[in-house]
Amino acid sequence: MPAVRESTLDHACLIVHGPDQPGLVAAVTALITRNEGNIVTLDQYSDNPEGGAFFQRVVFHRAGLSAALPDIRADIAATLEPYGMEWRLTDQSIPKRMAILASTSDHCLLELLWRHRRGELPVTIPMVVSNHTNVADDVRSFGIPFFHVPSQGPDKSTAEARILELLRDNVDFVVLARYMQILSDDFLRDVAAPVINIHHSFLPAFIGAAPYRKAHERGVKLIGATSHYVTKDLDEGPIIEQDVVRVSHADTAADLQRRGSDVERAVLARAVTWHAEDRVIRHGNHTIVFP
Amino acid sequence: MPAVRESTLDHACLIVHGPDQPGLVAAVTALITRNEGNIVTLDQYSDNPEGGAFFQRVVFHRAGLSAALPDIRADIAATLEPYGMEWRLTDQSIPKRMAILASTSDHCLLELLWRHRRGELPVTIPMVVSNHTNVADDVRSFGIPFFHVPSQGPDKSTAEARILELLRDNVDFVVLARYMQILSDDFLRDVAAPVINIHHSFLPAFIGAAPYRKAHERGVKLIGATSHYVTKDLDEGPIIEQDVVRVSHADTAADLQRRGSDVERAVLARAVTWHAEDRVIRHGNHTIVFP
Amino acid sequence: MPAVRESTLDHACLIVHGPDQPGLVAAVTALITRNEGNIVTLDQYSDNPEGGAFFQRVVFHRAGLSAALPDIRADIAATLEPYGMEWRLTDQSIPKRMAILASTSDHCLLELLWRHRRGELPVTIPMVVSNHTNVADDVRSFGIPFFHVPSQGPDKSTAEARILELLRDNVDFVVLARYMQILSDDFLRDVAAPVINIHHSFLPAFIGAAPYRKAHERGVKLIGATSHYVTKDLDEGPIIEQDVVRVSHADTAADLQRRGSDVERAVLARAVTWHAEDRVIRHGNHTIVFP
Amino acid sequence: MPAVRESTLDHACLIVHGPDQPGLVAAVTALITRNEGNIVTLDQYSDNPEGGAFFQRVVFHRAGLSAALPDIRADIAATLEPYGMEWRLTDQSIPKRMAILASTSDHCLLELLWRHRRGELPVTIPMVVSNHTNVADDVRSFGIPFFHVPSQGPDKSTAEARILELLRDNVDFVVLARYMQILSDDFLRDVAAPVINIHHSFLPAFIGAAPYRKAHERGVKLIGATSHYVTKDLDEGPIIEQDVVRVSHADTAADLQRRGSDVERAVLARAVTWHAEDRVIRHGNHTIVFP
Repeated sequence: MPAVRESTLDHACLIVHGPDQPGLVAAVTALITRNEGNIVTLDQYSDNPEGGAFFQRVVFHRAGLSAALPDIRADIAATLEPYGMEWRLTDQSIPKRMAILASTSDHCLLELLWRHRRGELPVTIPMVVSNHTNVADDVRSFGIPFFHVPSQGPDKSTAEARILELLRDNVDFVVLARYMQILSDDFLRDVAAPVINIHHSFLPAFIGAAPYRKAHERGVKLIGATSHYVTKDLDEGPIIEQDVVRVSHADTAADLQRRGSDVERAVLARAVTWHAEDRVIRHGNHTIVFP
Repeated sequence: MPAVRESTLDHACLIVHGPDQPGLVAAVTALITRNEGNIVTLDQYSDNPEGGAFFQRVVFHRAGLSAALPDIRADIAATLEPYGMEWRLTDQSIPKRMAILASTSDHCLLELLWRHRRGELPVTIPMVVSNHTNVADDVRSFGIPFFHVPSQGPDKSTAEARILELLRDNVDFVVLARYMQILSDDFLRDVAAPVINIHHSFLPAFIGAAPYRKAHERGVKLIGATSHYVTKDLDEGPIIEQDVVRVSHADTAADLQRRGSDVERAVLARAVTWHAEDRVIRHGNHTIVFP
Repeated sequence: MPAVRESTLDHACLIVHGPDQPGLVAAVTALITRNEGNIVTLDQYSDNPEGGAFFQRVVFHRAGLSAALPDIRADIAATLEPYGMEWRLTDQSIPKRMAILASTSDHCLLELLWRHRRGELPVTIPMVVSNHTNVADDVRSFGIPFFHVPSQGPDKSTAEARILELLRDNVDFVVLARYMQILSDDFLRDVAAPVINIHHSFLPAFIGAAPYRKAHERGVKLIGATSHYVTKDLDEGPIIEQDVVRVSHADTAADLQRRGSDVERAVLARAVTWHAEDRVIRHGNHTIVFP
Repeated sequence: MPAVRESTLDHACLIVHGPDQPGLVAAVTALITRNEGNIVTLDQYSDNPEGGAFFQRVVFHRAGLSAALPDIRADIAATLEPYGMEWRLTDQSIPKRMAILASTSDHCLLELLWRHRRGELPVTIPMVVSNHTNVADDVRSFGIPFFHVPSQGPDKSTAEARILELLRDNVDFVVLARYMQILSDDFLRDVAAPVINIHHSFLPAFIGAAPYRKAHERGVKLIGATSHYVTKDLDEGPIIEQDVVRVSHADTAADLQRRGSDVERAVLARAVTWHAEDRVIRHGNHTIVFP
């Protein structure tokens, strides 16, 4: 049975998106009121009031939420169906289950494990999987299971099958914490859960391998990091968060890597937190983020 | 007759604040819907869902807004009175009238005049008043009236009376763009309009005169600027916006002043824009800013 | 006769660069001492102490500098020749002559003119040249000559010849303040002076036209601006300065343009100031900036 | 015997400061050259070329440094004595010994231990001392000794004596990583080593206890952290580094604390690194930082 977070007890998060149209906000707020919910936060965005797309996130408190969920869900379906809207309703007291895939670098991984231990990340972490073993002790010292799935050359199918076996039904989303293997399209389809990556450049600059070396060669004055959902197109998925840090001519490629790693872990931590709190809505190759 | 801004034609902004209670958001959104309004943006905040204060800003589109305003206002009053809420409704196509008070420094003044000319500041500027004359030509080159009201020593009453005479019924808010006179309590009462100041430090650090000199003496590594509403208590009013810039041991007090002036004009421009767009709600000595 | 800046009277700036080798710094500092100079600031950088390139900037005070310059130059040549170093010595009291090329946008242009009038830019501005006329009055209100050289379709040779005629022997460097014409290789060769551009993206992201539209399409969370020296390869020249500002899903392409224009003018102002103060050394496609 | 860092083998760092006067830079560089050193980096600063104070940091490579140190020191003394300068020369391959004092918060402590393990902090950490025990296991998992010295009410003399006993002759500087006890003047005198603190506000704003609560009450829009050398005057010592992060009306005091802790650890890590690399020179209540 999943841990229940006290401060979010009886809090639900409703995400609604679809074609914008008059009366939507009123319909949703009336719906929450008649289901005895009290709105705590409400964010909404329309990319074009004339025939655009509409996005809404509402967090509401409702005493006895878990018992009432079936009725609320039925009412939402009945209310929003006529509008043609997509929606999802989550009980905020139930943390999402987050698996982490890592390689040899530990800075993003440890940042997530440490924030989780401090209670800053509203997730459970059922496992860390790595194609290397150097982080095993660290991971287990946080009380988190570690699994070693070695990479095996160009044919990734065995390793990916093993990872899928571990993840199946055990996770709600996957984080690549500087995982240095490119996942196959088959894997992304079969994992059937959002996969969040951290790329060590300010995308779309320096797509692909060795971005710090490329940044050094180009002589940029800022370097960055980008967290995005993984899609079939490498480094092209919807961006969740980005940030940069100032560098100078005196920084070597190794310096860029060192300074960049601080940006990477900060950016990934923000992206993961926002995803875990249902603050991110994907829309085509964009994200709507209600921070 | 005031200029009408096309892009905001038929857009109203409703600000609601008061004691938080269940059903408020639903009541407001239902109200807008039954008055044929379509919500464009909605922000709300409660500082404590259990008995705290509630703040909401809704922008909605309503065809034929100006003719319908009396009816909408009556409905709002009838709807929100039972909740004990304060509210105000503005027609967003009617820009606020902003007077600027300045002294010899021109950087904040010119920033506002130039942004206004570019169409970035949704205000009209009926006048600039200064206790000096050096900026007169610049102001008039923007097509804006300039009035010289010299300071006259410790007794400010004559100068303030002259300024009040100019402002009365002509302005919706007043901006002190590095105006170097301290306004009396009587002036603040009689002007009967919000007054926004830019202070050249990161408040509450370096309250009072000569903040750059004090910052230099303390050896800080960042300097800042703060825009706030003016109250009787000097430099203690509700903060609207702040920002900082990095400095080093090598910067002299004059360097701090020069670098700080860039922060001052940026911070003041943001604060003024947010105020003009009804994005700022005062609450005690705090501001709620929906940017 | 050029204006003399009092605060820099009798100050010289010596730039030295070439192959790194032991004793270089000592040789340069001894040289300055025996020429009765007192070092005010000294910056140096070596990209690799083992056989790399060496860069140094020294500002020194020398009473009666202008009379002594020929002797000092002879001594520098004699001292640094054995090391195979390139060098240049400038009298810091003589401001560089900066021409500005502009189109219809005024934000970068006015930023430079304002800063110049405030005494923050150590340059003279002999002229502004534009292929449009809308900024003419503004420019002339600063007491600066304005020349209109209209663009004439795909064949730029006539317009460029006219601009070259205006610039020849009158300027030390050229700033493209959102000048929307691509300069030909012939122009860049014949102008025989550094040309500084501001590109409205965080290069190398969004090279070429319409970067704000591309940034909006990609869904980035930060937008930027880049100031660089212009070379034959469009948007590929050595970067002098870059900066970014945070944006969100709610910003339209027009919003990005508006917010980006603030970054553009700040970045260009810094790059121009550093160039004017001989703080930038070009090295291949990189810059060494001693700020 | 202390660990030797390979990349800094045979590198010395010379710090010189005292009254500015002509010929100083030349004297120092000539000195290094005649001692067969090759200058790698040189930074210098004078707070007033006419009778001010002069600060210089030179890193030079010298084959066989450790054997030559006595001769080089003698030459420095003979050269700089006539100028009345203070100086210190350190062998950069010998890391400074850094003790950490902590309480219950782990974020600053773990940040330093992580960076140290990654090789980013050029120090050894002979011990962590805490008045609590909750971080003991974490500290020891990094292979670092942990000592528990409980606080004992208003009379700190016993606890401080115990800490001094642990530190004596074992450390080169002390870091207070959110250590929540105020050290007595006697302790500061007897420890005879620099003590670096992290204060959880942008000093001089919110001096003293509970800065996040005070920041929340004042309604600031940015919160910060400040790392400084500890002096007798609480929160008044020379500032090494500061930074800020944006907050909003919606952040509670607990949110400010959480977001602030990220700034605290980043600021402290930079300050400690700069101190460890001899990049910080104290001068009265200021610091000269050559980053």
